[in-house]
Amino acid sequence: MTPDRGFPVAEFETRLARAQARMAEHGLDAMLLTREAEFRYFTGYLTRFWESPTRPWFLVLPARGKPIAVIPGIGTALMRKTWVEDIRTWSAPDPEDDGVSLLADTLAAVTPENGSIAIPDGHETSLRMPLADLGRLQLLLQPRSFTTDHDIIRQLRMIKSAREVAKIREACAIAGRAFARVPEIAAPGVALDQVFRRFQMLCLEEGADWVPYLAGGAGPGGYDDVISPARPDPLCPGDVLMLDTGLVWDGYFCDFDRNWSVGRAAPPVEQAYETLIEATQAAAAIARPGQRAADLFAAMQAVLTRDATDTDAGRLGHGLGMSLTEWPSLIAADDTVLQPGMVLTLEPGISLGDRIMVHEENILITPDGAEYLSPVAPAGIPVL
Amino acid sequence: MTPDRGFPVAEFETRLARAQARMAEHGLDAMLLTREAEFRYFTGYLTRFWESPTRPWFLVLPARGKPIAVIPGIGTALMRKTWVEDIRTWSAPDPEDDGVSLLADTLAAVTPENGSIAIPDGHETSLRMPLADLGRLQLLLQPRSFTTDHDIIRQLRMIKSAREVAKIREACAIAGRAFARVPEIAAPGVALDQVFRRFQMLCLEEGADWVPYLAGGAGPGGYDDVISPARPDPLCPGDVLMLDTGLVWDGYFCDFDRNWSVGRAAPPVEQAYETLIEATQAAAAIARPGQRAADLFAAMQAVLTRDATDTDAGRLGHGLGMSLTEWPSLIAADDTVLQPGMVLTLEPGISLGDRIMVHEENILITPDGAEYLSPVAPAGIPVL
Repeated sequence: MTPDRGFPVAEFETRLARAQARMAEHGLDAMLLTREAEFRYFTGYLTRFWESPTRPWFLVLPARGKPIAVIPGIGTALMRKTWVEDIRTWSAPDPEDDGVSLLADTLAAVTPENGSIAIPDGHETSLRMPLADLGRLQLLLQPRSFTTDHDIIRQLRMIKSAREVAKIREACAIAGRAFARVPEIAAPGVALDQVFRRFQMLCLEEGADWVPYLAGGAGPGGYDDVISPARPDPLCPGDVLMLDTGLVWDGYFCDFDRNWSVGRAAPPVEQAYETLIEATQAAAAIARPGQRAADLFAAMQAVLTRDATDTDAGRLGHGLGMSLTEWPSLIAADDTVLQPGMVLTLEPGISLGDRIMVHEENILITPDGAEYLSPVAPAGIPVL
Repeated sequence: MTPDRGFPVAEFETRLARAQARMAEHGLDAMLLTREAEFRYFTGYLTRFWESPTRPWFLVLPARGKPIAVIPGIGTALMRKTWVEDIRTWSAPDPEDDGVSLLADTLAAVTPENGSIAIPDGHETSLRMPLADLGRLQLLLQPRSFTTDHDIIRQLRMIKSAREVAKIREACAIAGRAFARVPEIAAPGVALDQVFRRFQMLCLEEGADWVPYLAGGAGPGGYDDVISPARPDPLCPGDVLMLDTGLVWDGYFCDFDRNWSVGRAAPPVEQAYETLIEATQAAAAIARPGQRAADLFAAMQAVLTRDATDTDAGRLGHGLGMSLTEWPSLIAADDTVLQPGMVLTLEPGISLGDRIMVHEENILITPDGAEYLSPVAPAGIPVL
């Protein structure tokens, strides 16, 4: 039942063809990509080596033809296993010229002299190369101009293929099995930092390739926030424990959480939990192609504001896939229209005095509605 | 024996004072920081939430006075636990204005109208915000200019304090205990991807907070490369297994590897291993303040080229600390002079036909020489 690893070449051909069609619409002669997810999207190049910030990696999408990898020599052996044929390398790091002239030559050869080279520059993007080197590159390529990618990467990556969905589904299933085993590792008296360690071990034991993200919290009647590292404070009766993981299977994330009450839950905690579940269900019930990200936000917010007050999270869910978080955002201002193949988190939160509680599930937008990818949480808060 | 978590405020005061002294030398009116390690270096703000690429985070170092955090609201509770007092937040993500005007107002208030604002732009840096937003920021702040940080961040972060070294030492000790237990999880017939999973579990069990990096390989008489993900191929007699981990304790990395022979090693593997150990020792023997990064490279290269040929790694070691890899690079072209408090990896590699072998240790530069932070590997290749 475990899906295949990797992708057939046809998947990359499709991604590239779609990108090039949109590039042509916008009159772009090439696209320059520098970040892990963008790079992998068009090549299948999967490695944890991006954890090292030292070396820049460049991928050039020409207007026609296959991607060209301009990469440090250390990546050659792995890149040769992908569908990319044109692999140009330099010995990195090179303090004098860290791939810049090689990249400039590559871009110059595939673009006209007055050409237009796109770099993703919009929301949730950044450029993974030294700013000073971008300046050098621009000088070398004059009179060519650098311009926006017109959200092409965003538009492509937001819609997942069936194979991508299968990988996210697998990541969700692994996390679901790990969450089901939390009673083995969490009990009154166990320190929260040990729960975090042991939970990551459960994720690995259940099949995660690695665990790039674990957040959570524990406290009486709720937690302080959802992004602090775990402290060695023991769990106490009356605490609410939350664990939120983004584990990876074959390069794709899940991102959902679970809550538990340590001992019997106080009525406000029980109520808050049920409100969170209701809010999640309200969004899932209306999620279908044609609705907007803002509509899912509104559906959750209506439930939350009926009973409770906001948190500072800034949104109530988001896309996910090759990254822990991706476009769109479930906020009032995001009018992104839902389409089949989008994978989203529904992530409502509630303030309980100076504490909060957050719930999160992962859904797939299908032609007919929403399908849960995460195993749905119990209707009432489980007790440890 | 475990060191304290976090840092006393005095540590951040010292870091800031050093940065501001250098900023004054270069006539800089403020510095803008956007990346995790830079942000944490001046604030102590430690969270895995940076795994989410959605939201930008901004830290402003004024010419005088404490850092100012301009951050998404979701970070408020955790930032209040740091020594930073001036915390300005917006509800992120905001597609219309994702903190840009708030950041511009902040920078405008602490710089003169013709002021100069530094952004790290050199080797091993990047800007973690959308490029289009950098353009907007520059427009809003005219006629102020943006300029290089003159490697100030590099100069500061390369020299670790005693408290930083203690955290790296702890990370190394944890990894050392995990490596010592590899015979529990690796044997002929066990699939390499399972070894990777189980090794990450060992790292956590031995005390890692998380395991951001694990690489390695296995193959007959050496491995293909050191950055590929593990495949489900079983270990076979005659394989060389290598595991290379960057685990984190309290936000600081170790980065070293170990090799094993599956069954008895062939003579070329035994010889290569001994050459790698000898190369490491040659660099450690001469490592002291006043030597250059290039000298350590030359010491290793002399041993390696006597017996063997290069790999494509591009360097034979590097700095480490808050990141898996940091400045300097052990290459012929890096003239960085070693100073007490630098923490380095020594990472010689050898080609064995179309295979490679790599060894890695971590050292601290002390006033008198080098001190190993990693428990030193055995003189001969251990057998599984």
